[in-house]
Amino acid sequence: MLIAGKHLQTIWFDESSESVKIIDQTRLPHTLEIVSLVSLADAATAISAMQVRGAPLIGVTAAYGLYLALREDPTVLEQSLQQLAATRPTAINLRWALERCQRHLQTLSPENRAAEALALARSMEREDIDVCSAIGDHSAELLDELWQTKKSTQDRLNVLTHCNAGALATVDWGTALAGIYKAVNRDIPIHVWVDETRPRNQGAALTCWELGQQDIAHTLIVDNAGGHLMRQGLVDVCLVGSDRTTSNGDVCNKIGTYLKALAAHDNRVPFYVALPMSTIDYSLASGDAIPIEERAGAEVSHVHGRNAEGVHTAVSIAPVGTAVSNPGFDVTPARLISGLITERGVCAANSEALAALRLTSSNAT
Amino acid sequence: MLIAGKHLQTIWFDESSESVKIIDQTRLPHTLEIVSLVSLADAATAISAMQVRGAPLIGVTAAYGLYLALREDPTVLEQSLQQLAATRPTAINLRWALERCQRHLQTLSPENRAAEALALARSMEREDIDVCSAIGDHSAELLDELWQTKKSTQDRLNVLTHCNAGALATVDWGTALAGIYKAVNRDIPIHVWVDETRPRNQGAALTCWELGQQDIAHTLIVDNAGGHLMRQGLVDVCLVGSDRTTSNGDVCNKIGTYLKALAAHDNRVPFYVALPMSTIDYSLASGDAIPIEERAGAEVSHVHGRNAEGVHTAVSIAPVGTAVSNPGFDVTPARLISGLITERGVCAANSEALAALRLTSSNAT
Repeated sequence: MLIAGKHLQTIWFDESSESVKIIDQTRLPHTLEIVSLVSLADAATAISAMQVRGAPLIGVTAAYGLYLALREDPTVLEQSLQQLAATRPTAINLRWALERCQRHLQTLSPENRAAEALALARSMEREDIDVCSAIGDHSAELLDELWQTKKSTQDRLNVLTHCNAGALATVDWGTALAGIYKAVNRDIPIHVWVDETRPRNQGAALTCWELGQQDIAHTLIVDNAGGHLMRQGLVDVCLVGSDRTTSNGDVCNKIGTYLKALAAHDNRVPFYVALPMSTIDYSLASGDAIPIEERAGAEVSHVHGRNAEGVHTAVSIAPVGTAVSNPGFDVTPARLISGLITERGVCAANSEALAALRLTSSNAT
Repeated sequence: MLIAGKHLQTIWFDESSESVKIIDQTRLPHTLEIVSLVSLADAATAISAMQVRGAPLIGVTAAYGLYLALREDPTVLEQSLQQLAATRPTAINLRWALERCQRHLQTLSPENRAAEALALARSMEREDIDVCSAIGDHSAELLDELWQTKKSTQDRLNVLTHCNAGALATVDWGTALAGIYKAVNRDIPIHVWVDETRPRNQGAALTCWELGQQDIAHTLIVDNAGGHLMRQGLVDVCLVGSDRTTSNGDVCNKIGTYLKALAAHDNRVPFYVALPMSTIDYSLASGDAIPIEERAGAEVSHVHGRNAEGVHTAVSIAPVGTAVSNPGFDVTPARLISGLITERGVCAANSEALAALRLTSSNAT
């Protein structure tokens, strides 16, 4: 990801200060602030306060958090794992990353743990970049094919995305946005419709900021607008991320994804989901089995932003005491999905294709 | 509409002060303020600044504005009509109301115009109440039938609504909400899911306030959430208003209505639209012919509300300079609509049924 023209990751290990650096995403889009994590507590807070968010990035942050704990005291492996797991109890990648660290570190003698934890965190960081880059290559291939069918009649390829499945949700590249970055590198003239993504506005705050830094044409819309744009023929493809995908191809993603998939289906707009293999939950038969996190009502009744004086402010938009329901995710049934884009290639959203994909070597990409 | 337990209309003529009184809707939900209109300029500002909004209410306000102009100077009929028509150039009821006033007043001698204009405004006010009340009766009948099929398995009837098609959009009762008020009067235990309705949040600010004043159970949700709730079986019926309905039954309503209609269709949830006959545009063959108003980008990039100190504040939620698209309405195709509820009864959303409805005497209700 380019920020003010320089390459930047969302997280990295800084050799000179021996600290983990992150972009504090709670300050975006108005302020770019790099924060140092020097302890387990710092890392746990970064995850729980959503200074870092996005399933892949949370996993890597947790791995670094474990290193920060073990370099202080190499005997605290178990309690550190528990402390980190509790920061976002429903994030599947967090558990996946912690279990991987646990398997690797628990057999080592304490004096070797810190160094190995650092090496593992760095390798997970590197791996996440490679996975997202591969997802981007496969997505760009799809976008290129689509562009070839459109370019005689229009001057840009219109992609609609929801929430932030960008570099900011990963170490770099992103999932859904990776394909856009790679397609732009192939000189495909992409324009992105960015759903603001209430209640937390990750589209308006993060996706617009990220695309703007990359100098990619984009337009902010309310979540209500996408159906109208599709009816008008102004969307060529929808491209979103996934928080969890079940073995039949159902996708659990940020609330509102399902509505866009319905509109895409009604208007014959292709609807693709980009996701790392690590977010596929082969243990679940369908999306109906995924528990949906109910989040705080204040996320809906109050909106955060910057006031005219440049001060971060929350404003209340509803009568005091109004009851709120705030489901964080919804399930898009596989029948509405044109394809799943993983680091191993593009796969139909059904049980057979996903089972076959599981057997594919990741080296096949 | 009951406000703090007392009956209140959105607009009325106050005999003692000889002024037109309105609820200033730009101050809701945080402050209830009654404003006096004493001149044409006051009325024009009330409409353009959206102190009053909602197609039926705008029409009645314009009629009163004409009276306020003519009592000052009975010779200014034509220029007053033009000034009022320019306040919200796309509102169809505004033109309908002004044309009706023009036809009635232009044949009168100037000395009779003011008194007749007042009488006409008051009769349009009364008529709007009667129309909405009749819509409410027909809607309540439908809700009652639905409740009879549900009451053995659940303890409340869940209605989802979008935007504010309530008493605040009319003189009293509302269109979509009229049915809810009348159903509650029949002791049907209604619970309303209220879409916040970005970008202007009329659901959060106005519908929640209005339902709260009536003591009707309701829960605020983001516009993204309705599809998920329908998949979970938590919505029994959708009930919305219409800004313009074409002769084939297509409905143009607040942006995002189409997405809810798709979700309702996908989950076999009935989707009804409540509307006065005056919003049916028999001159248009389909919704595709309706021009969609593109509104200011600042409505999307900035959110208005009350800060912690109780001060009305706008906050920016996107990077400075982000491009915005803000279509105000979308078209829901007739095929997704279970029925149109008018003051003349419930009608299928198709050309034949609408043509037959047109021939029905309004006395038939």
